[in-house]
Amino acid sequence: MTYKIPFSGRAIDYTEDEIQTVVTAMKTADPLTQGKYLKEFEQKFAEYIGSPKCFAMCNATAALEICAQLGQFKPGDEVVVPAHTFTSSVYPFVKKGVTPVWADIDLKTRVVTAETIERCLSPKTKAIIVVHLYGYVADMPSIMALAKKHNLLVIEDAAQSIGGSINGKQSGTFADLAVFSLHSHKNITTLGEGGVLAVNNEKFVNIIPQLRHNGHCAFSFERQDYWIPAMGNVDMPQLNGEPVWPNNYCLGEVECALGTKLLQRLDPINAQKRRRAISLIDALKSYSELEFHREDSVRHNYHLLAGRITHGKRDDFIRKMATEKSVQCVVQYYPLYRYDFYKKLKLDKANCPNTDLFFDNMVSFPFQHRLTDQEFLYLQEAIKDVLNELRK
Amino acid sequence: MTYKIPFSGRAIDYTEDEIQTVVTAMKTADPLTQGKYLKEFEQKFAEYIGSPKCFAMCNATAALEICAQLGQFKPGDEVVVPAHTFTSSVYPFVKKGVTPVWADIDLKTRVVTAETIERCLSPKTKAIIVVHLYGYVADMPSIMALAKKHNLLVIEDAAQSIGGSINGKQSGTFADLAVFSLHSHKNITTLGEGGVLAVNNEKFVNIIPQLRHNGHCAFSFERQDYWIPAMGNVDMPQLNGEPVWPNNYCLGEVECALGTKLLQRLDPINAQKRRRAISLIDALKSYSELEFHREDSVRHNYHLLAGRITHGKRDDFIRKMATEKSVQCVVQYYPLYRYDFYKKLKLDKANCPNTDLFFDNMVSFPFQHRLTDQEFLYLQEAIKDVLNELRK
Repeated sequence: MTYKIPFSGRAIDYTEDEIQTVVTAMKTADPLTQGKYLKEFEQKFAEYIGSPKCFAMCNATAALEICAQLGQFKPGDEVVVPAHTFTSSVYPFVKKGVTPVWADIDLKTRVVTAETIERCLSPKTKAIIVVHLYGYVADMPSIMALAKKHNLLVIEDAAQSIGGSINGKQSGTFADLAVFSLHSHKNITTLGEGGVLAVNNEKFVNIIPQLRHNGHCAFSFERQDYWIPAMGNVDMPQLNGEPVWPNNYCLGEVECALGTKLLQRLDPINAQKRRRAISLIDALKSYSELEFHREDSVRHNYHLLAGRITHGKRDDFIRKMATEKSVQCVVQYYPLYRYDFYKKLKLDKANCPNTDLFFDNMVSFPFQHRLTDQEFLYLQEAIKDVLNELRK
Repeated sequence: MTYKIPFSGRAIDYTEDEIQTVVTAMKTADPLTQGKYLKEFEQKFAEYIGSPKCFAMCNATAALEICAQLGQFKPGDEVVVPAHTFTSSVYPFVKKGVTPVWADIDLKTRVVTAETIERCLSPKTKAIIVVHLYGYVADMPSIMALAKKHNLLVIEDAAQSIGGSINGKQSGTFADLAVFSLHSHKNITTLGEGGVLAVNNEKFVNIIPQLRHNGHCAFSFERQDYWIPAMGNVDMPQLNGEPVWPNNYCLGEVECALGTKLLQRLDPINAQKRRRAISLIDALKSYSELEFHREDSVRHNYHLLAGRITHGKRDDFIRKMATEKSVQCVVQYYPLYRYDFYKKLKLDKANCPNTDLFFDNMVSFPFQHRLTDQEFLYLQEAIKDVLNELRK
């Protein structure tokens, strides 16, 4: 089915300048991976978010796989995670033998809180994964205080919240480790795939290049000739005296050049998304049957615009939006414990009433940055029309 | 140090047409990953090499990681591998608890043979990794016959041999599984990073999309509404009744569009490299102290041009090439058992005299496709001059 307003898998159009950046990198990058554009992008990204050290990765899942390695978990260790998130926030940890403990979300903000996390703590808890879902930065100051009290590793999944901040401190700079996504859906994207690992805990920094790039490293001694005994060494990265296996998670130079360029446009993109979100939420404020999370500050980048239908007619609403208005709404973030994947792992036990309630009544609207103003207004009027009809 | 002829980490320049392909994909791809360009690239790649099914990956190491998963190895299982190769050919298997058994290379062809592999077989052997190093296709008919006799899984690491063939059958189509690299160094490259997994054994085909993309799959039942119970399922891939963990190894749409385009230029690139290699080898045939592997057929794509210095003056040769001719030669493929990585894993026992002899006397010349004819002739004359000087 073709929609007048599809829920596009692509968030932004590239400007002529951004296209020119790619063309220039294609013509000049030598090598085409692991070169100067990578270094520049990592530095600019770290400066932008205010992190001591950032590493570009082929995607955010890869960055989370590295986080799961750096946790050095043992089977039986517990990690507190939200169930209302994308599967990549969790499965890399489950791969390591960790038991995820599902923290509920706050119904208003749709993210976990220090309180919902605290309910999940046990003597086996080793880490907390916080996801700034939809682009809203969870209450990191409170969560970090809780983690400090219990001596827990914290990982921010900032895949959707790039540029969001609390009191001037950006998402991805609170926890020990944080990941960002530069995937096709996101507010900025490096040709559809890409991610960043932000490392705030110094003890992890040194081994990450090796973990990312096949264990490659320099020899530990000075060489007289650059090829003796070999061009470079391959070694097993070590953390706390234990080996950590290497991977290949490199992001190419052209993507990195584009990433640097896109950072210049990130604030305007976020601002436009927030402006539109607030204007739509306010235009619909008389419709109490559609509840939004209104946050008119840089704490929310409105990567996605999700609402909750409170009168139980969610499915009728989506059907009518599709058939009568040709607008493709979706539902997002199936509680992870309901997927066959987690069921087969016997990880389907959860006490997350808000997660279930929200998911079963949520609707995510097409909200890609590349919607025209006309399309955006059409969307807004379509929502009104369908809500009015459902009141009859 | 800056060289007149560096050993470049980049093999090819892009044509204006190829750049335009990238620009068009940047403007039109929706989504920017896992869309129509991926499907087209996989189909064209499979048609080009003559494989039933190919899957694009973020890099060749990722494809090898999947091969290591599909082997479903148990600790103690042995896999026969060459030691004269890049570390990615081997470490994904070692990660799975496998013991690599180092097969020696043939001194002339610098790749493993059925004979050197056979010497490594034991009752514990479960698989064979064959690497078509430098772009020369190993004797796959003999190796497959050996594998069939012993019921072994075979994986071709065709990272360097794209387009190479034996009797019209291309590398990557002989074994159960094969990987190709589209990395910056390679004869064609998808913006610096990329790879392909070619699957010739049907039993593996169905689960690969899930293994590549976070376990995403369709629900097993028909749905009335596209969002109920969720937009899609996430499940644990199963092979022979056992779970195989998912990953995120996706390659973006722009890279895939470029990959399809580059396939049109692959044969001319390979032909030019082979023509140059043969002409250089023939021009230097009176210098018996520099031995090449001459193969004037499509069995060799001459991804790299490597020679062996037979009079023991390899290091003097490289030094003079650098300081007197400003040509950056390198040595490649440190026998894996000599790296700290494999030493720390106690995998440093090997009986590979040819591997050691070749490595300790080898020299790899700058041979990127983008060398001009003038640069190439300069290289040839520089080699002659330095060899002449070393004769004095």
